[in-house]
Amino acid sequence: MDILLKLIIVSLCVVVVKPSVIIQRYEDCVLDTELVEEIASYKNVTKYIVNEIKENFGRTMYQEYTEFIDKFGARPSGTDVLERAIDHMINLTKSKGLNDVTTEELEVPHWVRIHESASMLEPHKKHITILGFGPSVSTPPEGITAQAIVINSFEELDKVNSKYIQGKIVVFDAHFVSYGDTVIYRTQGASKSAKKGAVATLVRSITPFSIYSPHTGAQYYEDNVNKIPTAAITLEDADLLRRLQDEGEKIVLHINMSSTFDTKKSRNTIVDLKGTEHPEKLVIVSGHIDSWDVGTGAMDDGGGMMISWFVPVILNILKLKPKRTVRAILWTAEEAGLVGAQAYLNKHIDDLDKINLIMESDEGTFKPLGLDFAGSKKARCIVQEVLKQFAPVNKMENSGYPGSDIVLFVRKGVPGASLLNQNEKYFWFHHSEGDTMNVQNINDVVDCSAFWAAFTYVIANLSVDIPRT
Amino acid sequence: MDILLKLIIVSLCVVVVKPSVIIQRYEDCVLDTELVEEIASYKNVTKYIVNEIKENFGRTMYQEYTEFIDKFGARPSGTDVLERAIDHMINLTKSKGLNDVTTEELEVPHWVRIHESASMLEPHKKHITILGFGPSVSTPPEGITAQAIVINSFEELDKVNSKYIQGKIVVFDAHFVSYGDTVIYRTQGASKSAKKGAVATLVRSITPFSIYSPHTGAQYYEDNVNKIPTAAITLEDADLLRRLQDEGEKIVLHINMSSTFDTKKSRNTIVDLKGTEHPEKLVIVSGHIDSWDVGTGAMDDGGGMMISWFVPVILNILKLKPKRTVRAILWTAEEAGLVGAQAYLNKHIDDLDKINLIMESDEGTFKPLGLDFAGSKKARCIVQEVLKQFAPVNKMENSGYPGSDIVLFVRKGVPGASLLNQNEKYFWFHHSEGDTMNVQNINDVVDCSAFWAAFTYVIANLSVDIPRT
Repeated sequence: MDILLKLIIVSLCVVVVKPSVIIQRYEDCVLDTELVEEIASYKNVTKYIVNEIKENFGRTMYQEYTEFIDKFGARPSGTDVLERAIDHMINLTKSKGLNDVTTEELEVPHWVRIHESASMLEPHKKHITILGFGPSVSTPPEGITAQAIVINSFEELDKVNSKYIQGKIVVFDAHFVSYGDTVIYRTQGASKSAKKGAVATLVRSITPFSIYSPHTGAQYYEDNVNKIPTAAITLEDADLLRRLQDEGEKIVLHINMSSTFDTKKSRNTIVDLKGTEHPEKLVIVSGHIDSWDVGTGAMDDGGGMMISWFVPVILNILKLKPKRTVRAILWTAEEAGLVGAQAYLNKHIDDLDKINLIMESDEGTFKPLGLDFAGSKKARCIVQEVLKQFAPVNKMENSGYPGSDIVLFVRKGVPGASLLNQNEKYFWFHHSEGDTMNVQNINDVVDCSAFWAAFTYVIANLSVDIPRT
Repeated sequence: MDILLKLIIVSLCVVVVKPSVIIQRYEDCVLDTELVEEIASYKNVTKYIVNEIKENFGRTMYQEYTEFIDKFGARPSGTDVLERAIDHMINLTKSKGLNDVTTEELEVPHWVRIHESASMLEPHKKHITILGFGPSVSTPPEGITAQAIVINSFEELDKVNSKYIQGKIVVFDAHFVSYGDTVIYRTQGASKSAKKGAVATLVRSITPFSIYSPHTGAQYYEDNVNKIPTAAITLEDADLLRRLQDEGEKIVLHINMSSTFDTKKSRNTIVDLKGTEHPEKLVIVSGHIDSWDVGTGAMDDGGGMMISWFVPVILNILKLKPKRTVRAILWTAEEAGLVGAQAYLNKHIDDLDKINLIMESDEGTFKPLGLDFAGSKKARCIVQEVLKQFAPVNKMENSGYPGSDIVLFVRKGVPGASLLNQNEKYFWFHHSEGDTMNVQNINDVVDCSAFWAAFTYVIANLSVDIPRT
């Protein structure tokens, strides 16, 4: 499991929403006139799909989404509530008249936080809110009391002599730059600190904004390195500890954490709208159904899961059956390290050439903007041509690593696309108690859904496959 | 205490930062040319004060402010930490060379939250974060389990037959309009619900924005009405409960709260820079030193207390002794219901005519904008003339009730002024764990301080008193 997790977490680290967005226009695209005309001919049907979702079916979908989130709330990997949520989505699919629903079972991590508390003992007493990273180990039952040292970066950690780290609690105080740049302190901080003798790590939450809100997430223990407890603290407490250290104060913290960790069975859920001409060819549209154990996973990734699930469902309702199979996948155990996606990849490794395009929405369902696309230049030209009819939802980004789960497939050469949306505040709520329906807006989610479904339909029905490199 | 509290809380309710700001320009001001020239003659000295604070002393003040907040954190009414914080400010004043520091003792409420928890039992289990309002009574030790009814407004409550409220937990779900419009559900919700037989109330936090953040505050039990437990819930849970009720679900909640309530001694702290010509005449500049028990009271009202305290201190350092006495007052127990201010008013009731102007900063120390002023038209004209030299910090508002503590004095006819500042996000953090140094910006606080001190100096040194109605 560790090696898998390692691979997976390293993947997670590079799934970056870079602040400097690379938006490329392929002005030099030369597509066959016939193809351009074919794409243009979809204008009426995309308009139809968009209108039907915006004016009619989208509101019901949003209602079902809300009920799903309200009923199940947080759906952590390995829990019964996640399995019940999966069953609910299976039943909901069938209730919509789409019966081609299957699941693929796999073993998933099951980390359960039991008790977490911390306090500053010196230079004065103060409660410190912590939120453990999964799957952190527990402290001894009596907790850990140790001096703290505040460190800005791995570069600074490298420079500090181990004798100053030995026996201490390392507090990483790296300010949010981008998720990718900053999340490394969450994912790798414990092992990097443990190598130098630290007894625990606390990490400034990976967010640019806080109302004393801690943010959890996955972390990875390197092999053959002492596993030490690791948890998030708020921006407020990170700044406080930094100030106290800068003032020359000796800081002593007490941490007490307990959790359990084993594995359980879970399922990827597959909803197919079979292709009329090439049922073996797949356009996959996906989101993950699991969430962290704080908040309700409405944003991460309830919204993305829902609009992706809705693609085959609404096309079926509208009796729009494209040439290729439209497959919605509700990944399980994404938060535990893309575990569901990895299992699917392993199982279907010999059929990757059947995947025409793999899509995921896992970066919010705020106002839709377009796509983050990875694929060959020809592929980009086709996607750009299709996007034209969705203006102003026609931006194309090229981060190199669209999506979260789907990055595993993109790396194998499968063209991939992630939903671009106006998600500037995404990390304010991400992996925190603030990830609830309150961050969502019905019109934005419905707009995302309309774009997502209509775009998928065109790709799945095109006369040409999305060309690979 | 109850009657006092009642008076006080009713006062609190009307201390409104209305969203529709009344900014009046007195174009028809006719001031004596001599006075206009005198005010203009302060330009150099105000520039000097502003520059000295911005370029020099303000940063030290900010550092001392930070250390104060970091050291003492939350300073609730009646606690030892508040008294130690008061001692610290007394010592800090003396260390700055200003020895005219006195305190006035009074009895203050001392409400201590011990345990608070809540959960939804039906239609499904969910943790509900609550934060009790002071001084809420406790639940029985086993807690209260009851059906909940979600109510939008007092008007709606009035219309509901008591039999639907009897034995229930009333959840007030009034959305934030302005603090004054919405805080009534916190301050009066318990008694209004109890009159109709409710066993507890939960109130949507008084804030327009949340990351699952509950906001506490004072509430008032009417005489001869059953005292029922009352607490804040987050916007997220209020919306959830509303949705569940709208869907026809029966909601059952469990609440467990325990607290203690008695009284303790505390002190208003008075720092005087004695006037050279009219030492008996006072220009009072103030803020409150107590805070709620969540967060660290950095914003409410650490910043306002600090910049007000700094006025006589910096004028003394700069050897600028105005004609009238500049008195800084650090009110105690404002959060418990303007208790310190009421005691001061009672004690000095025969000397109100000696107060030339009373000022308070208790609505944030973000970017300074000007003043919210209450007084006669002639007084406004003078203040407006003084403000001219602080442009762009020269806005004058006329809410009718500037400040929090000082409203008690304004109602007695004393001219009053509150610091206007760019505090749109004030209620995001107000009375929550998010009220920390992180909401503050050194440049803004220093700018507030510079304006506050220089303006006070001019008023305290003018040849004319601020005329009353």
